[in-house]
Amino acid sequence: MSDRPKIRLHVDHPLGPGQTVDLSRDQANYLFNVMRLGPGAEVALFNGRDGEWRAVVAEAGKRGGSLSCVEQTAPLLLPPDLWLLFAPIKKARTDFIVEKAAEMGAARILPVQTEFTNAERIRQDRLQAHAIEAAEQCGGTFVPEVAELQRLDRMLDDWPEDRQMIYADEALAGAAEALSAAPRATRWAILIGPEGGFSEPERARLRALPFVTPVSLGPRILRADTAAVAALTLFQSTRGDWR
Amino acid sequence: MSDRPKIRLHVDHPLGPGQTVDLSRDQANYLFNVMRLGPGAEVALFNGRDGEWRAVVAEAGKRGGSLSCVEQTAPLLLPPDLWLLFAPIKKARTDFIVEKAAEMGAARILPVQTEFTNAERIRQDRLQAHAIEAAEQCGGTFVPEVAELQRLDRMLDDWPEDRQMIYADEALAGAAEALSAAPRATRWAILIGPEGGFSEPERARLRALPFVTPVSLGPRILRADTAAVAALTLFQSTRGDWR
Repeated sequence: MSDRPKIRLHVDHPLGPGQTVDLSRDQANYLFNVMRLGPGAEVALFNGRDGEWRAVVAEAGKRGGSLSCVEQTAPLLLPPDLWLLFAPIKKARTDFIVEKAAEMGAARILPVQTEFTNAERIRQDRLQAHAIEAAEQCGGTFVPEVAELQRLDRMLDDWPEDRQMIYADEALAGAAEALSAAPRATRWAILIGPEGGFSEPERARLRALPFVTPVSLGPRILRADTAAVAALTLFQSTRGDWR
Repeated sequence: MSDRPKIRLHVDHPLGPGQTVDLSRDQANYLFNVMRLGPGAEVALFNGRDGEWRAVVAEAGKRGGSLSCVEQTAPLLLPPDLWLLFAPIKKARTDFIVEKAAEMGAARILPVQTEFTNAERIRQDRLQAHAIEAAEQCGGTFVPEVAELQRLDRMLDDWPEDRQMIYADEALAGAAEALSAAPRATRWAILIGPEGGFSEPERARLRALPFVTPVSLGPRILRADTAAVAALTLFQSTRGDWR
């Protein structure tokens, strides 16, 4: 790993042997002005589809430039088919949840509106940029898609019947072992509620749904961002790609 | 739980039946100016020793006031005897690790200086205040102590032999199941490295120590704050108070 380039960059461009990758103005600024790379310098590239590639700087300009792919250094590593549903909270903590979901290997990130969710809208583009940055940092070759804000009740109406959902229920007595007793499945979702918790009707509906497994996250009340990382850890260590 | 007062306050004062608790200027400002409580209003108090108490406002002044304890509403719930050792990083993320450690039920929080740690000093008082705030938020009755910054190598020289250490080793191939194979013990510590990882000599020393169990936190490289929450989750769900 020490031989790999230190800079990892996500590009929206096909990657393959000898492929030339043109840089955006922002990317050129980052590589050539901020990081001061010159022609011949190495960069690791990934696009979420073709794995990780070692590339060298071909042209370095003030407002643009290009890289040339040399060889694949890692295959595409897809995370488990795990969605993270969460109710958006304050800006910094919402950013944080998206960053953590990408690091922890969620395949899709879905902001949902519950009865007690304050957010009426999210900046989907900004959250997607956070997911990309987290993938660059964590050495991943996949970038989870951040969906637009949707209403939880409508999502549950149309829920795909072959996808199991883990739901962190703070009122639940019991333990995280519930997860090991959950059905076998290859498609999963984790639902994290808003800071104010779910409403009673929401909780009753969730508990009655056949695809939902409630899990407890311990005796203390976790903030939504902590709960997201904790639930992702429980999933990855028992059902996901940490095994 | 819905009958408990919404405001939880940590005080550094004994709590008992009929006990009068004088408020600091900051606490009085928070309760009477920000939250606009008046005489007779209820507040939940805890001091990290006597559990949680329902108290009522006895005197409300602009610069001070007092509460009177009515009854204990929860016993003191001590977390497992688990230390979290971490290398301080950027300010916001260090604050975050302390907040998460308190929420997740660490008993003591120990900032450590490793070879690749940039921080020369920490604001112990500010970090302790974060731990208190997190305990107020999460409904805990215990506040973990935040220690002063110490050198990791010296801590390892004097390590108590009856305390096991879990060490998140990013270079380790293998899985989190390592934790279930770790020795039985009642005293534990989790060690999270700095953003640049441990040095080779540190890693070699850690691996050779008899009380250390290396665990893997999956195929992606986690930031230190994510790694702290993930390792605390693995501990609490398999060895701690989430069972």
